[in-house]
Amino acid sequence: MIGHRKWLIPDGYLPERSTGELVSHEAVCVLNVHDEDAAIRLTFYFEDREPMSGFVVPCGARRTRHIRLDQLRDDAGRGLPRGVPYAIVVESDVPVVVQHSRMDTSQPALALFTTMAYPAEA
Amino acid sequence: MIGHRKWLIPDGYLPERSTGELVSHEAVCVLNVHDEDAAIRLTFYFEDREPMSGFVVPCGARRTRHIRLDQLRDDAGRGLPRGVPYAIVVESDVPVVVQHSRMDTSQPALALFTTMAYPAEA
Amino acid sequence: MIGHRKWLIPDGYLPERSTGELVSHEAVCVLNVHDEDAAIRLTFYFEDREPMSGFVVPCGARRTRHIRLDQLRDDAGRGLPRGVPYAIVVESDVPVVVQHSRMDTSQPALALFTTMAYPAEA
Amino acid sequence: MIGHRKWLIPDGYLPERSTGELVSHEAVCVLNVHDEDAAIRLTFYFEDREPMSGFVVPCGARRTRHIRLDQLRDDAGRGLPRGVPYAIVVESDVPVVVQHSRMDTSQPALALFTTMAYPAEA
Repeated sequence: MIGHRKWLIPDGYLPERSTGELVSHEAVCVLNVHDEDAAIRLTFYFEDREPMSGFVVPCGARRTRHIRLDQLRDDAGRGLPRGVPYAIVVESDVPVVVQHSRMDTSQPALALFTTMAYPAEA
Repeated sequence: MIGHRKWLIPDGYLPERSTGELVSHEAVCVLNVHDEDAAIRLTFYFEDREPMSGFVVPCGARRTRHIRLDQLRDDAGRGLPRGVPYAIVVESDVPVVVQHSRMDTSQPALALFTTMAYPAEA
Repeated sequence: MIGHRKWLIPDGYLPERSTGELVSHEAVCVLNVHDEDAAIRLTFYFEDREPMSGFVVPCGARRTRHIRLDQLRDDAGRGLPRGVPYAIVVESDVPVVVQHSRMDTSQPALALFTTMAYPAEA
Repeated sequence: MIGHRKWLIPDGYLPERSTGELVSHEAVCVLNVHDEDAAIRLTFYFEDREPMSGFVVPCGARRTRHIRLDQLRDDAGRGLPRGVPYAIVVESDVPVVVQHSRMDTSQPALALFTTMAYPAEA
């Protein structure tokens, strides 16, 4: 089956500031080309505290899902802090492909970056 | 033979706005180093609807092709919507290498990103 | 164990200029998902001189570490020069995942780029 | 030996315009961690003409080389055209690691992108 069940992303960060109409954010973009729905679990690692887990997002069969990390909430309503370095582990019960992107509008005129996540196993 | 016949790109998006002389767009860039012409088929996955297929672009022997996704049309003249998250599957009958880039001119001063696509099989 | 013990990054550069409140910089972002602390060793390669080594940074068990290269110092207090091309080899005694990013604020409005580093062995 | 002898980069482009003090350019960044000097050969592929070869650049033992594509010349003094899509094949007689980056200053405030090149064989 195409894709992997675990992906890692070391450089996570939500800029504290935004300018203009676009909000600084990150997205974990998932592609599920299979005929089964996938449940996507996200765990966040920090520099100075234990990991946060409990974030689950569905990605249907033959669907993509662009998960906005600045809007993500766990069961208790907790979200990610801004201005704090983190890293991300993405797990799925169905093999998927994962790409990570950031939009930074701290200064007038936005900046973007992206990379495929690092696949941990087949 | 160098390259792969299938490549996946989870983070596709055509920004709704452009400023200045450059139009916000994405490109799927294909390199075919072989001595046979390649036919490149693109399928687009969405968050809330079935995939769109029917987009075919040639890439000649020993040629590159930078496919502008904002200008791409299928046999029925349909194109991709702006402002909607999607993902891309690129298939080729000859092994190729695929890279995906976005130019975003939503705000004055452009932003760029790029990544190699994810190869699905040899 | 997830990750690799050696990662390479050919395009390192600290821009000489910064504008606004954000300083032009690079970060080597490390994710250690294991239950053992990691010691991260960085070696810098140049175009016209022998490599610089002697930079060691800890990354705890179940932690990320975003290493700011403009602030990094070796045992003798030496740092990296600005305005000079370099490349980076990252070594860890525990397998980790490594991503490399640059923020360039040479002109008003920042620019960003990122990529996974290249893993040298399992 | 660490690295590969052949790397591919589908998305090459030299923007026609530049603003401010920085010139729009691309760089092919090579890292040679071995104790032998490497000769780096670049071939450029286009959408509508045969490939251009004959570009050779040295990268010494334990050295990096950031090859500016806007300044590159072959034996006959020919360089790359601006404003034309191309793709790049990088070959080395010693295994190296290759990353590709673009700086675009078409609009006030620069943009950057980068990715590891695609390795063709060990």
